[in-house]
Amino acid sequence: MTLFDLRNLPYAVFSRPDGVRRIGVRLGDAVLDLSAAESSELILAGGALCRSSLNVLMALGRPQWTAIRARIVELAPTLPAIPLTEVELHLPFDVADYTDFYSSEHHATNVGRILRPERPGLQPNWKHLPIGYHGRSATVVVSGTPVERPSGQLGPGVFGPTERLDVEAEVGFVVGVPGRRISTEDFADHVFGVVLVNDWSARDIQAFEYQPLGPFLAKSFATSVSPWVVPLEALTGAFVPPVAQDPVPAGYLTPPGNGLDLSLSVEWNGTEVSTPPFAQMYWTPAQQLAHLTVNGASVRTGDLYASGTVSGTTRGEAGSFLELTWNGTEPVKLDDGSTRGFLQDGDTVTIGATAPGTDGAPIGLGAVTGTVCR
Amino acid sequence: MTLFDLRNLPYAVFSRPDGVRRIGVRLGDAVLDLSAAESSELILAGGALCRSSLNVLMALGRPQWTAIRARIVELAPTLPAIPLTEVELHLPFDVADYTDFYSSEHHATNVGRILRPERPGLQPNWKHLPIGYHGRSATVVVSGTPVERPSGQLGPGVFGPTERLDVEAEVGFVVGVPGRRISTEDFADHVFGVVLVNDWSARDIQAFEYQPLGPFLAKSFATSVSPWVVPLEALTGAFVPPVAQDPVPAGYLTPPGNGLDLSLSVEWNGTEVSTPPFAQMYWTPAQQLAHLTVNGASVRTGDLYASGTVSGTTRGEAGSFLELTWNGTEPVKLDDGSTRGFLQDGDTVTIGATAPGTDGAPIGLGAVTGTVCR
Repeated sequence: MTLFDLRNLPYAVFSRPDGVRRIGVRLGDAVLDLSAAESSELILAGGALCRSSLNVLMALGRPQWTAIRARIVELAPTLPAIPLTEVELHLPFDVADYTDFYSSEHHATNVGRILRPERPGLQPNWKHLPIGYHGRSATVVVSGTPVERPSGQLGPGVFGPTERLDVEAEVGFVVGVPGRRISTEDFADHVFGVVLVNDWSARDIQAFEYQPLGPFLAKSFATSVSPWVVPLEALTGAFVPPVAQDPVPAGYLTPPGNGLDLSLSVEWNGTEVSTPPFAQMYWTPAQQLAHLTVNGASVRTGDLYASGTVSGTTRGEAGSFLELTWNGTEPVKLDDGSTRGFLQDGDTVTIGATAPGTDGAPIGLGAVTGTVCR
Repeated sequence: MTLFDLRNLPYAVFSRPDGVRRIGVRLGDAVLDLSAAESSELILAGGALCRSSLNVLMALGRPQWTAIRARIVELAPTLPAIPLTEVELHLPFDVADYTDFYSSEHHATNVGRILRPERPGLQPNWKHLPIGYHGRSATVVVSGTPVERPSGQLGPGVFGPTERLDVEAEVGFVVGVPGRRISTEDFADHVFGVVLVNDWSARDIQAFEYQPLGPFLAKSFATSVSPWVVPLEALTGAFVPPVAQDPVPAGYLTPPGNGLDLSLSVEWNGTEVSTPPFAQMYWTPAQQLAHLTVNGASVRTGDLYASGTVSGTTRGEAGSFLELTWNGTEPVKLDDGSTRGFLQDGDTVTIGATAPGTDGAPIGLGAVTGTVCR
């Protein structure tokens, strides 16, 4: 049993040296070529598997997702397995709108204390609605893409490369079926699967620009996602009751839906510096989707909405280095003996995650990694 | 001479009763069918005119835009003219990322005074950089699309339809040629043309949600754009020196590029309530594009960036009803004798604009209109 056995089967878009993009699922340390399987009529998905992105597959809807997954399980032993070392992985879906929430109470409280020490950590609205904002979909990139250190205004009259480059360890939800005013109970009819997200952030640019319309250039330069989209069906074993919410949320945010018991890990140059617990998120993914669409706004196939930084109660569970090093004032020591406040050029950050599979034994969500360059 | 003679020639996507979307330009009160002209090889644009959106044309770049425009001028007398009454106009381009700036000093000051009376109108960062945020591209709709009154949280424990539905009269810039770190001097190599924008806003939802990550559901339900994309070449007669900027902006925001002398008008149920002057905008469109990309973020073909609400110095030049009625406290009287603070169901708002053409006589930008429904 591996983290990537038949209980998991995450989707990706891969290519071999011919450069042609194909759809596959991961099994062990190999990828099964679903485009080839559909071309030879082993799986019938209306051509959805013979594409260069997952979008057409994602638009099919839950009954078809279930049927295709069942067929893959049947066929898996007979399909040719291409070793992962022989493929390149690509951005798995065309991103429509990208939105990012802010749904960890511990993260929001920490950020408030660091950036607005004169006020209470949590804003008064925070427990009434899942705070979020729109991000830049053009700059959502696949894991492994180098991240150029952004320049910007760091303060009045000060322009230059950010000196406070940070990560945000998040979980992203990929919308398959379009909709508006989606109830929390219809979450699984619309969301195809889950990716890991690193929402790279320039804290000095952010601090200077974010009033009153929110973060803009501080987060628009790069958002990395894992190459594997784990279908929601593989995660049913990870469903857990949501955390208690007080005050009782508005009607459209009830019932709250499930939390997800994902165990994240954040590695900084190979040193594990944090283990953010996704099960502690205050707002659930179902509530986030309901909120996003309650005003009549539509979601489309390929929409990505991220959870917001996942942080637990302790420093070792922080999903950002802003929190981990308390804005750089308490540097962390890496295994090579060096210390860090924020990211240096050449640093690599890898966010991984596992979850209980359908039988309780863990499955993997893969990882999202990126190296900072100048 | 009309507002839509050969000096103008704005592009649109239209259909006749057969429903097929075609590309055309407006001449007088008719549209010239460019898809037909390219199909019959009267114009050669590599198939860019035989599409259902302007995106392929917009990606060609300035030399081709110029050549195609010149050819249209030559051919115009001979092309069949379809009366506007016989066509339906569609969203003219596929929107990639939608961003919205906040570049009128008068608007930003007014909003600050209304929403944050305890602090100075302008935030300390405002004159250092063009403040902006990302919006929702899924809900950019063409003029004429009904606007459903959004519901949301209006305050702690209060959910319902917005009671403060507002407009924002803006000018939008449509990116044709992708790029990163675009200097202000390269503005015209990347921006294809100009549309009018109404960034509908729910002020009560906005006030409750916007701290600390900016407006979200208050603006994501609908953003209307005019059907006509006026090519930048038609607007060279409207170029004016930018307003004086103090302090001197950062290097990447210089030279500032041109202002644009567009005269907007806002009609509320047929009563002209405001005439916002675009020439008074503090940040230029070239500075906005340079700012958007200075951190390494890319713009793509189909990106729409809007100016922010255009407001002048006087109440009769306000680009939002928040300002026009001072948050509803000073209602305006319409020609039918009724008064308004914010929008009522059934209300129609039309934002139009003209600009000096290449010979100084005005050309039209058309209009963006929308009616509020429940």
